[in-house]
Amino acid sequence: MLLLHLSDVDEAGWASAFAEQLAPYPVVRRGDDFDPAAVRYVFVWKPTPDAFDDLVNLEAVLSLGAGVDALMQHLRLPDAPIVRFVDDDLSQRMSDYVVAHVTMHHRQFTRFRADQQARRWSQFYPPAAAETSVGIMGMGVLGQDAAQRLAPLGFTLRSWSRTPKQVEGVTSYAGAEALDDFLAGTDILVNLLPLTPETRGILNYATFAKLRRDRLEGGPVIVNAARGGHQKEADIVRALGDGTLGAASLDVFEIEPLPDSSPLWALENCYVTPHIAAISTVTSGVRYFSRVILDAEAGKPLVNVVDRQRGY
Amino acid sequence: MLLLHLSDVDEAGWASAFAEQLAPYPVVRRGDDFDPAAVRYVFVWKPTPDAFDDLVNLEAVLSLGAGVDALMQHLRLPDAPIVRFVDDDLSQRMSDYVVAHVTMHHRQFTRFRADQQARRWSQFYPPAAAETSVGIMGMGVLGQDAAQRLAPLGFTLRSWSRTPKQVEGVTSYAGAEALDDFLAGTDILVNLLPLTPETRGILNYATFAKLRRDRLEGGPVIVNAARGGHQKEADIVRALGDGTLGAASLDVFEIEPLPDSSPLWALENCYVTPHIAAISTVTSGVRYFSRVILDAEAGKPLVNVVDRQRGY
Repeated sequence: MLLLHLSDVDEAGWASAFAEQLAPYPVVRRGDDFDPAAVRYVFVWKPTPDAFDDLVNLEAVLSLGAGVDALMQHLRLPDAPIVRFVDDDLSQRMSDYVVAHVTMHHRQFTRFRADQQARRWSQFYPPAAAETSVGIMGMGVLGQDAAQRLAPLGFTLRSWSRTPKQVEGVTSYAGAEALDDFLAGTDILVNLLPLTPETRGILNYATFAKLRRDRLEGGPVIVNAARGGHQKEADIVRALGDGTLGAASLDVFEIEPLPDSSPLWALENCYVTPHIAAISTVTSGVRYFSRVILDAEAGKPLVNVVDRQRGY
Repeated sequence: MLLLHLSDVDEAGWASAFAEQLAPYPVVRRGDDFDPAAVRYVFVWKPTPDAFDDLVNLEAVLSLGAGVDALMQHLRLPDAPIVRFVDDDLSQRMSDYVVAHVTMHHRQFTRFRADQQARRWSQFYPPAAAETSVGIMGMGVLGQDAAQRLAPLGFTLRSWSRTPKQVEGVTSYAGAEALDDFLAGTDILVNLLPLTPETRGILNYATFAKLRRDRLEGGPVIVNAARGGHQKEADIVRALGDGTLGAASLDVFEIEPLPDSSPLWALENCYVTPHIAAISTVTSGVRYFSRVILDAEAGKPLVNVVDRQRGY
């Protein structure tokens, strides 16, 4: 039996799509009349504190989110394997966001918009993509997808991750001791890291000050499409104001929705989007997790299982 | 002998770079003391009316501009072959501009910027790139380069050109009779056409009204990186105001610099840049045209020669 426990999204829509895909396998929702001991899979998003109570025969916890940092904080998380959502469609959407913001900053959008508002015809020729270095933090599925889409555009690419990752055309830096070297050659910093105790707050003033300063007119740029917990927003405000950063694109925030009082809203060189870089669609989610369940029921091993030690 | 005749650019810089590259082949500038009959190649940008007088032994006219529409209007243009600038570096820079503006509009930049200014947290998920159709007008070197960079991003691509062009992953439409079908399936229209009597004013209200309207929130988009003569700016203002177009990115204008009085400057959904999408750099220009001259002197046929009948 599959139990759905989804907050803040259309749980009923997901349930009917799963029921259709998995029939005759039983699919239930919170509030339905079912035996908790019969639940073998629970599909969760923002689970309540009692979400896992009485589910004594769980085979796996299925996470709608690609990032499991919030789920990992659940106080009564069961020992069953946690399966993350890994999906081509989600990766595509995330890369759509990353490419749009990287290219916009490469082409000096902030400068040209200010010129336009002043009715100023001021010719300036941005460097070619090859002269611009994009540094991707996090080289999991999302980071690798972004790299593969940025490479044909001609950008010079480097990556930073916990362990070395060999991706064609991307210079790999790994581990805390390589971070400074990675930053020193990066013009546009893209964050796609998982949120863990090691990566929390990594987008801070000291990090920004280590980015390469002599290439992009206006200063280096950050693009955060991962988690608000990665960034120190007070540091971003300071860096955008004093020129340590030329611009920032932020899709995630320390508190979401971003409070009305945040100074980020009003900064001309800060590009705020409301956590919409990528969404897990019902179509792709049902396809993916139905395959997970049917494979597991057929005795195949689970894939994309979270490593609880490293936290993702 | 190579004669340089360049207005509004650093002619002296070009001359010294050519002299270094071509030595001992002679390189002269306007105003130098030389025999006009000895000039075999003239390298021009915005030539004056007397630019070609007395050059009775020309092998070729070399055009700094990739577009030769203005040169073709020169009243005393000699019969010698005209060689256009075709260059990977120029194509790269043009594609940098095209990709940045296509992806920005695909990701609904105008909407999210307005939300930010209103401090409005309004979640909206743009369609994946594959659900968005980019239509490229003009499939010469620049159009093909843009297509090859947009394809790995996942966009659905179609092209429109004078004659059919087979490019992998791009649906080809050709000729005036296919224009409406091309437009009817296009969400983001990119213009990279040469400017000829047939293409002048092609970006007009009737064209905009034929674009696909049911995909991109806010309406279809145009990106013009070719020539101001392609667009009817009064029509663009009208279409941006009444919703026929959702947004426009314009790098070129009917009159350049864009007059202070133009309403385009003040439109929130119009993105004005001052004809900076792509520039011919001295390094790449000298490399390209030195090769042209040395090959011609060695008896090889000229490449990238303008067809005067079709106008490019």
